[in-house]
Amino acid sequence: MVRTLNIDCLNSVGQDVLVKGWIKARRDMGKIVFLDMRDRSGLLQIVIVPKLLDVASRGFLEKLKPEFCLSIVGTINKREKPNLNLETGEVELLANRIDILAEAEVLPWELGAEMKMDTFLDHLPLNYRDDKNRAIFKIQAEITKIFRDYLVEQGFTEIQFPKLISSAPEGGANVFTLDYFGAKAFLAQSPQLYKQIMVGVFERVFCIGTVFRAEKHNTNRHINEYTSLDFEMGFIEDPRDVLKVQLDVLRAIIKNLQEKCSAEFELLKATFPNLPVNVPILKLREAQALIKKEFGEDCTKEPDFEPHQERWLGEYAKRTWNSDFVIVTHYPTEKRPFYIMDDANDVGFTKSFDILFRGCEIVTGGQRLNDCSALVEKIKKFGLKSQDFSFYLEAFKYGMPPEGGTGMGLERLTWQMLGLDSIKQATLFPRDQGRIDLVLEK
Amino acid sequence: MVRTLNIDCLNSVGQDVLVKGWIKARRDMGKIVFLDMRDRSGLLQIVIVPKLLDVASRGFLEKLKPEFCLSIVGTINKREKPNLNLETGEVELLANRIDILAEAEVLPWELGAEMKMDTFLDHLPLNYRDDKNRAIFKIQAEITKIFRDYLVEQGFTEIQFPKLISSAPEGGANVFTLDYFGAKAFLAQSPQLYKQIMVGVFERVFCIGTVFRAEKHNTNRHINEYTSLDFEMGFIEDPRDVLKVQLDVLRAIIKNLQEKCSAEFELLKATFPNLPVNVPILKLREAQALIKKEFGEDCTKEPDFEPHQERWLGEYAKRTWNSDFVIVTHYPTEKRPFYIMDDANDVGFTKSFDILFRGCEIVTGGQRLNDCSALVEKIKKFGLKSQDFSFYLEAFKYGMPPEGGTGMGLERLTWQMLGLDSIKQATLFPRDQGRIDLVLEK
Repeated sequence: MVRTLNIDCLNSVGQDVLVKGWIKARRDMGKIVFLDMRDRSGLLQIVIVPKLLDVASRGFLEKLKPEFCLSIVGTINKREKPNLNLETGEVELLANRIDILAEAEVLPWELGAEMKMDTFLDHLPLNYRDDKNRAIFKIQAEITKIFRDYLVEQGFTEIQFPKLISSAPEGGANVFTLDYFGAKAFLAQSPQLYKQIMVGVFERVFCIGTVFRAEKHNTNRHINEYTSLDFEMGFIEDPRDVLKVQLDVLRAIIKNLQEKCSAEFELLKATFPNLPVNVPILKLREAQALIKKEFGEDCTKEPDFEPHQERWLGEYAKRTWNSDFVIVTHYPTEKRPFYIMDDANDVGFTKSFDILFRGCEIVTGGQRLNDCSALVEKIKKFGLKSQDFSFYLEAFKYGMPPEGGTGMGLERLTWQMLGLDSIKQATLFPRDQGRIDLVLEK
Repeated sequence: MVRTLNIDCLNSVGQDVLVKGWIKARRDMGKIVFLDMRDRSGLLQIVIVPKLLDVASRGFLEKLKPEFCLSIVGTINKREKPNLNLETGEVELLANRIDILAEAEVLPWELGAEMKMDTFLDHLPLNYRDDKNRAIFKIQAEITKIFRDYLVEQGFTEIQFPKLISSAPEGGANVFTLDYFGAKAFLAQSPQLYKQIMVGVFERVFCIGTVFRAEKHNTNRHINEYTSLDFEMGFIEDPRDVLKVQLDVLRAIIKNLQEKCSAEFELLKATFPNLPVNVPILKLREAQALIKKEFGEDCTKEPDFEPHQERWLGEYAKRTWNSDFVIVTHYPTEKRPFYIMDDANDVGFTKSFDILFRGCEIVTGGQRLNDCSALVEKIKKFGLKSQDFSFYLEAFKYGMPPEGGTGMGLERLTWQMLGLDSIKQATLFPRDQGRIDLVLEK
């Protein structure tokens, strides 16, 4: 007998089917046992009337409990009272025969129970079976899909970038080091140099991959390994071309999530963000002046925001422009990596931008230096050695058009999109200083 | 003026357009200069009649050479003699005005020139601008897209797996080690344990990501960092369910490449593989007996093949069954990782399979142990500590259905699909023992 998915039972009224899944809940009502059974397509109500069950199955009926994996043969009936909260709520399965595919120990808590972050993280393999956690990563899978589909449509080519690198373009402080057959290698902090090289080849490229930051922060917005959604495009006029693609990507993500994941958003009590046609855009120093005026804190001498200042900006933007996003441009030259282009019309500042989403930076981007000699000069000015970048520089020796791009943190986007407490809840297997799956022994 | 892509010039006859791209070739025919200009959509012929050009552009006409980035305004005309080898061959652009967006040094060789592998690798940023190399990675991008699209359609959920891990499930020999905030961490050799955990959550999952092997091999089929295309699925009957999905994925890849990349295959003189309805499937020992009989070499005592034996099998399968693929099953228990299920009907052998493609293993898969206590026992039998796997084991404590999956090397698949000499030609930025981009100083 071929397996029927729970969702397809809707079209099988009066028929005998074979279904497979996990017990989500068991309810004993007198002699009748009801099971909610979960498979990848959703839930189905199983009705077990012991006397209608084959003898073998009757023997282990008592032991069936949450997270047992079962295979059940039975008849699909229309329910007298449909359950409107369930996609398959118009039908139920009356069981004839049950097979246990795998047993489960007694759950230490009900799925979805509140607990401390450490307990939550210690038991992800169990905790992820809860509907809410499943919803988070369903949404995350959708986000990556939309990101890719949208960029492919716009003529971008996907590339696989390397994670083992020999120099650290984003600065040496936050980089993991390893022994590589007797030489020193680093773990990539971004796909930056490689996606730029590939602009010379494909003009427009994107990549989705793991990057690593050896940061000692232990906050609700930092993790040491994350997924970066990057694109890079050539033949731009200025950073606005890059910004437009980035905002269109975000628009596509929001629109598609509204169409495909509204049930998941409802379950998570998450609100779809507002990304207005005219997103507020401020130079860093304008944003700093605004913070001084509105919140009374003087950060005008600083090269970047503190987290609470980003939150203030987010709140202000929501209140004032009804926007969940704020674009901040013109970060100072010395605080951005060497490959960022300076703005000739605003000396000391760069053609860079960040996008803050609900008060947290989720995107960094800008226009890059594409002139080879200017790039060499800037590398030296930053105290780096141009020979360490000779491989990269070759792409610029042979014709690199004006170009730019962005990097967006998948987990940060997911976290802010869903209003979760910590980015760790939006990271499938989060790594922090003290933990790789479990707490590390040091 | 908005930029027109080269390919769209076909629909702009008689109109003035702005195009942007790289010079691929320059031909001087008396006073007239012809350029082949490349952008992401393809090539376009540019006709430059100096007296019809604005004065400023005339000044630098002489210096234009391959890989300069240009912006050109001109009129699209129908060609008298269409170039049938070019997608835009029915039209050409008569230039009015040229702007140089970036200059290029004189190329050290013509793009596509033959050279030693080391020279090729030293200059990837330049060499990748050649059409053939671009074709390889266009095809690779298509493969990842088809893999994902096909599995999403089959109800699989995409996951992001971690690359920093705390234990090495595939065995400790080939693993890179690093210092992780004072603790020891490893680089993932596969997403194996995580995709299995997630079967408990989503039933069917897939992932595409980088994995690392600290192997000292220096062959045409080994690299130290590669992209693994993985899936894992629950509620299977036996390994054939897994094999079916894997073969269907391969079928989808071949079919879609035939539809979308036939020009690239032609350029690379590559032949689409034949994947028959009934792919030859042999137990390891049957394949070894066949090798003994056909090729006179006795490897019947070995737990796996040598590369030349895989090649023999590939040749034999092509000759005998007209199949570019061979499935080999039942590898011995002690030579497969602990998580593989033994075949109760064939003691000492596992429910595992490899798929050889044109004489090289590209897929490894099988059914996994899903019973928690059997798993714990096997871990111990393999001399590993079950407490090192307690996080993973939790997924099995709470109901894991019969499940299995596969891993496929993206670069190996691309390499064999296109009949390239070395896997390095199918790896965007290949790492080997002695090289990360450039040769390492040790």
